[in-house]
Amino acid sequence: MTASAEMPPPPDDWRPDNPRPAGWLTPEDLAVVRAQLPLVYVDAVPVRVDESGDVVSVGLLLRMGPRGLTRSLVSGRVLYHERIRDALLRHIEKDLGPVALPQVPTSPQPFTVAEYFPTPGITAYHDPRQHAVSLAYVVPVTGDCRPQQDALDLDWLTPEEACSEDVQSEFVGGQGVLVKQAMGWVGRLP
Amino acid sequence: MTASAEMPPPPDDWRPDNPRPAGWLTPEDLAVVRAQLPLVYVDAVPVRVDESGDVVSVGLLLRMGPRGLTRSLVSGRVLYHERIRDALLRHIEKDLGPVALPQVPTSPQPFTVAEYFPTPGITAYHDPRQHAVSLAYVVPVTGDCRPQQDALDLDWLTPEEACSEDVQSEFVGGQGVLVKQAMGWVGRLP
Amino acid sequence: MTASAEMPPPPDDWRPDNPRPAGWLTPEDLAVVRAQLPLVYVDAVPVRVDESGDVVSVGLLLRMGPRGLTRSLVSGRVLYHERIRDALLRHIEKDLGPVALPQVPTSPQPFTVAEYFPTPGITAYHDPRQHAVSLAYVVPVTGDCRPQQDALDLDWLTPEEACSEDVQSEFVGGQGVLVKQAMGWVGRLP
Amino acid sequence: MTASAEMPPPPDDWRPDNPRPAGWLTPEDLAVVRAQLPLVYVDAVPVRVDESGDVVSVGLLLRMGPRGLTRSLVSGRVLYHERIRDALLRHIEKDLGPVALPQVPTSPQPFTVAEYFPTPGITAYHDPRQHAVSLAYVVPVTGDCRPQQDALDLDWLTPEEACSEDVQSEFVGGQGVLVKQAMGWVGRLP
Repeated sequence: MTASAEMPPPPDDWRPDNPRPAGWLTPEDLAVVRAQLPLVYVDAVPVRVDESGDVVSVGLLLRMGPRGLTRSLVSGRVLYHERIRDALLRHIEKDLGPVALPQVPTSPQPFTVAEYFPTPGITAYHDPRQHAVSLAYVVPVTGDCRPQQDALDLDWLTPEEACSEDVQSEFVGGQGVLVKQAMGWVGRLP
Repeated sequence: MTASAEMPPPPDDWRPDNPRPAGWLTPEDLAVVRAQLPLVYVDAVPVRVDESGDVVSVGLLLRMGPRGLTRSLVSGRVLYHERIRDALLRHIEKDLGPVALPQVPTSPQPFTVAEYFPTPGITAYHDPRQHAVSLAYVVPVTGDCRPQQDALDLDWLTPEEACSEDVQSEFVGGQGVLVKQAMGWVGRLP
Repeated sequence: MTASAEMPPPPDDWRPDNPRPAGWLTPEDLAVVRAQLPLVYVDAVPVRVDESGDVVSVGLLLRMGPRGLTRSLVSGRVLYHERIRDALLRHIEKDLGPVALPQVPTSPQPFTVAEYFPTPGITAYHDPRQHAVSLAYVVPVTGDCRPQQDALDLDWLTPEEACSEDVQSEFVGGQGVLVKQAMGWVGRLP
Repeated sequence: MTASAEMPPPPDDWRPDNPRPAGWLTPEDLAVVRAQLPLVYVDAVPVRVDESGDVVSVGLLLRMGPRGLTRSLVSGRVLYHERIRDALLRHIEKDLGPVALPQVPTSPQPFTVAEYFPTPGITAYHDPRQHAVSLAYVVPVTGDCRPQQDALDLDWLTPEEACSEDVQSEFVGGQGVLVKQAMGWVGRLP
């Protein structure tokens, strides 16, 4: 959910060359809806854990955005007639590849709900394109993760590194705060 | 979120005689969008608590639906540019009146997320009109609650009564399960 | 945490033939403490999940208790200087064997806290031996599980079966309610 | 739960001049138990909220400890045969006075569990006196709060102030991290 003055390329789930199941919107329709309704999103914080479930590192994507390199989480829309857990799986596969082997949480209770507003300052999250209500989950991955598509790289940082000022300054739209909230929830906030 | 064969009257938040802020959809537009996107909802379980915060009773609305009397929770859409906590306040005021004095939770973390699908059987929740992703909260109310608008009555039942088979049979769309989940979460499931 | 009139044999973690690290109590000391302090416990609800993290079945232990066959969860004390996640691992290994391959949750936030009182009726949970404050977690297991020690069997039941009246009647001390709360939390309460 | 080389004065709940109900330990017995068992604690983060439940400020106690002024949360033991919600009420009254009017959460699910170890570095929390497992809750208070007993003052800080480096440096034992976790959970982490 990268911020951008010139509307960034839309996520792959509605790009024109994709087969579009019934119920999917055209890019034009979506643009109209985006100005009128909050959209349902998911944010996944991919983590590596040790054998006792303790978080060892956090996977952050590195993308080239309009304002330079930015870090981001796995994030995207929930589609019509799609379960939240299936949206999580789809976006993790889209961003981390088909063999990331994610352990989607058993419960739909998110660790938080990130409300991205088109107007900055209302919440900690901001998305100039739209109002998105994003259910945020920590998702352990045990397989091989490779950045896909527009991501340049995937870095595995310790919780301390991910919460450091340097790394935090590389997020846009409040996703840095979301990482810190995730680390607080797993008991690894420095 | 009552189930109905003949599309029920839309909730008041988009009724024609309402002033409609920029970004609100016309009923026609909403009908189109409903077939193409999941909508963001909130479900509130109104409760009375004792001085130690223990739930004493649950407030259930009684409405006349197409299939007879049904029980329901406080429930409704989150609007464009509206915070979840403001949507909770608005729907509680709409359904319980202006002096219910709700204590909206400090955290946006819901006790569960109810995914209402237009197709029954995918989750425990069903809404023939739409795909709604509903953030569910338990909300203590301390003031005077009066059923508004289309609600015939507001009953305060004990957790045991609210989870009983008789009362459970009076819900539609899975809201009975949601009440049981709420009672489980507050430690009052019989 | 089985209920019993004649004090049941203590759980293995403090049995006399065990090597007892510094800080462990003798059975006599523990008996004294149990009448004076709440003890820290964990309850684990072992589950099998499908690839999207949805709960498919619940693992319930079958034991012979003083009042006949009873179902129980994986449950036990947290020891001095032991982390909660290590206590979960230890009790899961103790009850399900060394190759259960549990996925201990990333977060210490339990789905509920079960307060077992020696006096029945104060909460939904009861343990005649002691006051235990038990942090309850749902733990997916992916390996081979075999009942250990005093357990006669381990049954994998669907959420619907585990919440049925028949199965619920086979629990003691409120652990049946705890199973229902777990199923509510994962969105699988019937 | 202030850290101290010379064992700090014990919290009032076991001071010698208190009437001691059956099941309470003498200070000598408690000292023995503390070296052998984890104790059950609660941590309460007192907050002021606006009418929509959004946290406006955090109440922090100022105490004179062995190493100078320290900030602390409302914190203390859960007694034998005491419910968590009653322990929360008792400690809030003990620390903030009898007319703080706390809104104890409806659910026993804490926002986190703080594991205070006598050995530093195992978790983010440390208590040289003991191993305490503390259930942490955010508790809105609406009444008049006055620091009691050994507290010199009660400051109401904004979430931003409470998470600032200056204020964070005034906590001991990891309670500063706990405040940040609480602010993350309510969506107010800066």
